[in-house]
Amino acid sequence: MLYIVGGPQQGKSLKEEIEARGVPAWYVELWGHYIVATPPNAKLQDLKTPVKAAIELRTDGQLVSREWKRDPTPVYIGGREVREGKIFIIAGPCSVETEDQIMKTARFVKEAGADALRGGAFKPRTSPYTFQGLGEEGLKLLAKAREETGLPAVTELMDPEDMPLVVKYADAIQVGARNMQNFTLLKKLGRAGKPVLLKRGFGNTIEEWLLAAEYVALHGNGGIILVERGIRTFDKTLRFTLDVGAIAYAKQHTHLPVIGDPSHPAGDRRYVIPLALAILAAGADGLIVEVHPDPDRAWSDAKQQLTFDQFRELVQKAREVARALGKS
Amino acid sequence: MLYIVGGPQQGKSLKEEIEARGVPAWYVELWGHYIVATPPNAKLQDLKTPVKAAIELRTDGQLVSREWKRDPTPVYIGGREVREGKIFIIAGPCSVETEDQIMKTARFVKEAGADALRGGAFKPRTSPYTFQGLGEEGLKLLAKAREETGLPAVTELMDPEDMPLVVKYADAIQVGARNMQNFTLLKKLGRAGKPVLLKRGFGNTIEEWLLAAEYVALHGNGGIILVERGIRTFDKTLRFTLDVGAIAYAKQHTHLPVIGDPSHPAGDRRYVIPLALAILAAGADGLIVEVHPDPDRAWSDAKQQLTFDQFRELVQKAREVARALGKS
Amino acid sequence: MLYIVGGPQQGKSLKEEIEARGVPAWYVELWGHYIVATPPNAKLQDLKTPVKAAIELRTDGQLVSREWKRDPTPVYIGGREVREGKIFIIAGPCSVETEDQIMKTARFVKEAGADALRGGAFKPRTSPYTFQGLGEEGLKLLAKAREETGLPAVTELMDPEDMPLVVKYADAIQVGARNMQNFTLLKKLGRAGKPVLLKRGFGNTIEEWLLAAEYVALHGNGGIILVERGIRTFDKTLRFTLDVGAIAYAKQHTHLPVIGDPSHPAGDRRYVIPLALAILAAGADGLIVEVHPDPDRAWSDAKQQLTFDQFRELVQKAREVARALGKS
Amino acid sequence: MLYIVGGPQQGKSLKEEIEARGVPAWYVELWGHYIVATPPNAKLQDLKTPVKAAIELRTDGQLVSREWKRDPTPVYIGGREVREGKIFIIAGPCSVETEDQIMKTARFVKEAGADALRGGAFKPRTSPYTFQGLGEEGLKLLAKAREETGLPAVTELMDPEDMPLVVKYADAIQVGARNMQNFTLLKKLGRAGKPVLLKRGFGNTIEEWLLAAEYVALHGNGGIILVERGIRTFDKTLRFTLDVGAIAYAKQHTHLPVIGDPSHPAGDRRYVIPLALAILAAGADGLIVEVHPDPDRAWSDAKQQLTFDQFRELVQKAREVARALGKS
Repeated sequence: MLYIVGGPQQGKSLKEEIEARGVPAWYVELWGHYIVATPPNAKLQDLKTPVKAAIELRTDGQLVSREWKRDPTPVYIGGREVREGKIFIIAGPCSVETEDQIMKTARFVKEAGADALRGGAFKPRTSPYTFQGLGEEGLKLLAKAREETGLPAVTELMDPEDMPLVVKYADAIQVGARNMQNFTLLKKLGRAGKPVLLKRGFGNTIEEWLLAAEYVALHGNGGIILVERGIRTFDKTLRFTLDVGAIAYAKQHTHLPVIGDPSHPAGDRRYVIPLALAILAAGADGLIVEVHPDPDRAWSDAKQQLTFDQFRELVQKAREVARALGKS
Repeated sequence: MLYIVGGPQQGKSLKEEIEARGVPAWYVELWGHYIVATPPNAKLQDLKTPVKAAIELRTDGQLVSREWKRDPTPVYIGGREVREGKIFIIAGPCSVETEDQIMKTARFVKEAGADALRGGAFKPRTSPYTFQGLGEEGLKLLAKAREETGLPAVTELMDPEDMPLVVKYADAIQVGARNMQNFTLLKKLGRAGKPVLLKRGFGNTIEEWLLAAEYVALHGNGGIILVERGIRTFDKTLRFTLDVGAIAYAKQHTHLPVIGDPSHPAGDRRYVIPLALAILAAGADGLIVEVHPDPDRAWSDAKQQLTFDQFRELVQKAREVARALGKS
Repeated sequence: MLYIVGGPQQGKSLKEEIEARGVPAWYVELWGHYIVATPPNAKLQDLKTPVKAAIELRTDGQLVSREWKRDPTPVYIGGREVREGKIFIIAGPCSVETEDQIMKTARFVKEAGADALRGGAFKPRTSPYTFQGLGEEGLKLLAKAREETGLPAVTELMDPEDMPLVVKYADAIQVGARNMQNFTLLKKLGRAGKPVLLKRGFGNTIEEWLLAAEYVALHGNGGIILVERGIRTFDKTLRFTLDVGAIAYAKQHTHLPVIGDPSHPAGDRRYVIPLALAILAAGADGLIVEVHPDPDRAWSDAKQQLTFDQFRELVQKAREVARALGKS
Repeated sequence: MLYIVGGPQQGKSLKEEIEARGVPAWYVELWGHYIVATPPNAKLQDLKTPVKAAIELRTDGQLVSREWKRDPTPVYIGGREVREGKIFIIAGPCSVETEDQIMKTARFVKEAGADALRGGAFKPRTSPYTFQGLGEEGLKLLAKAREETGLPAVTELMDPEDMPLVVKYADAIQVGARNMQNFTLLKKLGRAGKPVLLKRGFGNTIEEWLLAAEYVALHGNGGIILVERGIRTFDKTLRFTLDVGAIAYAKQHTHLPVIGDPSHPAGDRRYVIPLALAILAAGADGLIVEVHPDPDRAWSDAKQQLTFDQFRELVQKAREVARALGKS
């Protein structure tokens, strides 16, 4: 159940009243609402604290559900709006490698029309022997590129202990696919004070993805952008199978922005543009895409990062498809 | 190896010469070429029969490969062209049920802009106890709808014995997902004399799909349209996972037309339009979509068939996305 | 619904009576019962034809269900019994290649303790350019090996037109994984007069596998052996993922014998023995395994066929595990 | 590359020497060896520090590979040995719920023949609204059960911050499937000083599982037990698809103990025993299984926990299968 109340005071009273009956309750202020949440099946009678609305949903994805909050939620990255009706393009290298690399990329993607810059400083790598990212040094370079270009910066957080560091340098925090059900991390991101890009785990269902968002929201952070990036299937022709159905579903069932990552499912830059356009046509509110000044020499994901020319082509086509869909 | 020769006579000579060396060979006339094919690794020296070109490919999908035939192949369904650069829309009910149902649907989809009519008379059903299609009676109704509206008709063939019947009434023959590796059927379709819509099996890789097309081509039929219709994955939120990456891949690696079926992966009409647009944005040359005058009362696939209003909306949006992509 | 009646005459009467009410009905004699089957939800009142029992099940897998037929069904291959409580081992090469190869293998597997001989004459091959089997010549060699050793022979049928041929030479007919939902073939096998080994499709659910068996039974053939042989999953370390859970499930929910094929999921002979033992420990009634006198030179599946020494080791271990499970 | 050196001093020297050449290196003492590891492809010439052996492997799973360490590694949980050649059974409830529940279970499983007790205090739950475990209170109850019965205790760690707490109360630390690629956690477990049970992620390949173990080993902890617990596939009849092939593969390619969890793939207690026996027959060194005094009233995983009677039956059958395999 979600209870919408008039303000923080009622919220705290209601939480206490409910907990006094042995039912767990959370109080959160999200999207202009004062909300007390309980497990969905915990319907309580004769509550004394006044409530403006009591909303009963059949899903555990309560806060993120579009059944009660029908207007789409905008999320702000460094002051720029990600929302339904327009497309937001985040671009940059897989990993921050050198000052020259990130500055060149930032300048280029800005000029080509990107809305934000991506770049990994902490890299989740399958093997302990491969490049794990530059760490704080990478964050500093990212911040420098942001300063020069004005593009807000998005980067991944892996270790909750690094949260203060990441929050200091970045405008939005990415949760990687492998951490989508790292509930410890999700709970802590509730208090990050910065928006979260929540990548879908490649082995996770759509419902689990929405419930991971529910964890972040329930712990206090409503600035969540869902990111579809492909799932694992029996077919290995491309790196992952992009699930455009997940985008269509998430857009109808949540009020949060949904974007897509065409780079990881493609695994090869030849397929990135068609996947990116499919993401948008399926209804996504934007893209996060890997671009590198010299992809073949990239320190990670060399095959799938776009060249500058390809990125320019992508932006142009993306804008045309967006227009055809009635978006800006 | 593919050997392009000057005419049928040389083709037959070359086939004999190669077979005399103990290597299997096939002679086919396809897409304006006289071709002798051998297994890809069977490179023969000092052949006496003159050849115009000898093409060595690293794949078993030789005939269908875009490496040697770079121009896209058009396929004609009842005189209408399916080809790269435009979009072709096939629409109609899952199953032919009654004269009224199929006539109503045919008239409507024609008026709304469809290029061909679909409708199943032989239905592959998981359970032996569910409706298996009207059989020849269904084919006759389909032919009647074609006669009145002028729309060419597409229908599924399950039993090779029914091929003469299906060829008699329909303009294109569909191979269902469950039969994609029914090699007996594929070989016989080589001699059908009508184009084949080859649905990808929901448990089959992209390579297997292209090799199924190779079976049809090698046995004499070059009129093949590849149809992506979703694969089975761990996620069951939608009925199947539409694999737009397979469309992007097939468009780059074969010269055959590729279309997509948004109805089966959606499994629910609420998701059909976004999936259809994603199919087109990924580069497909058309759509095959289920439409029914009264979907909730359909004898099969009730949940996923579009209403007439939804189909009209789909066609309009599809045309706008096609224009954005520079297609007619 | 299943209606058990007293004999063929009542069966035919009941079928007519039900069909007269507009409900489809089938009459079959299976496992010593005279049965009229209708769709499971078609509950009819006040039938005039006397019935011994009316059985209502919640599944379309009615005939094959263990809910009504609790005693396990034995199936006879060339007079030898496949049944719960013992293990039945079918062994032989992937393909019949030469007389020497099949005779050597047959003699060896017999001596090592096999109960039946396998060998493919019609081979379903992903590529049209690879060896498609010896056809009738292969069947004749198989029959010769059977004659000399006394081992009953099992072989695959792909084209329904070849059924008379296969029935003539073999003691049991295998349906390959790719044909598990070739409903045309399944229906025709209902009249084969020989037992059917029904391999599970690598993209098919357990329910679909049981319903494929229902097709065969409903069309008149109760001699069905279910064969688990691995499914397609995201993990490609081994060739397929052997689904021992499917064996456990099928054993509890059907009365038919269930065996397992460890060769195809292993894809490499190093893993065949542990997979074979896992199949038995999960409750299977036997094995079908590939063995070749010189596997590295085999014309198909070279990597996964066992050597003679390995097969001897497998039989010995299999018998010990069977004993531990209280089986003979 | 792995370099085996004579002692800590040489290890540190060699690490410095290699790093001075710009190649990353790690020094670890594992399984009685002093080891310096570098990325597998970093072959260095003319090293000055003396080495006893330089081992070149084609995999990133170097430390865990059986190619160089052919003798199986035993792991000790509270003084009890998990090793090849015997079976080790860990049993207990999904979650620690009450003192009565955990004490009853501990006493029973000990008497029935279990070697260790399991019980979750920190629970990774898909929904934030479901029971998240008793936390430290649960750990204390677990420790109490250990004290009374003498059974070592195994429990899951989710938050690296809780490591001191878990280490204090438990004898082995479980990494849950959802955290298998939480590299932050894996690195920290390198310094845990207690053995790690590393569950395979349900969306992870076998190689990724072995590389997750490599992370733990490379950071200093060689006490790793691999746990197969089922993967996600298209088939949802059982909760997950138990991958016995992964067990067979891991046993041949690593020297670490491998055990299996039959409870999570079964998802229903009716299938737990056959899956458990399949795990052992595939070559596993033990089991971890859920048992509850009153499963239907369990606070989590109610359907799949075994009753006491079923657990007794499982142990008896497991011991017989083990004997058939020549194990104690």
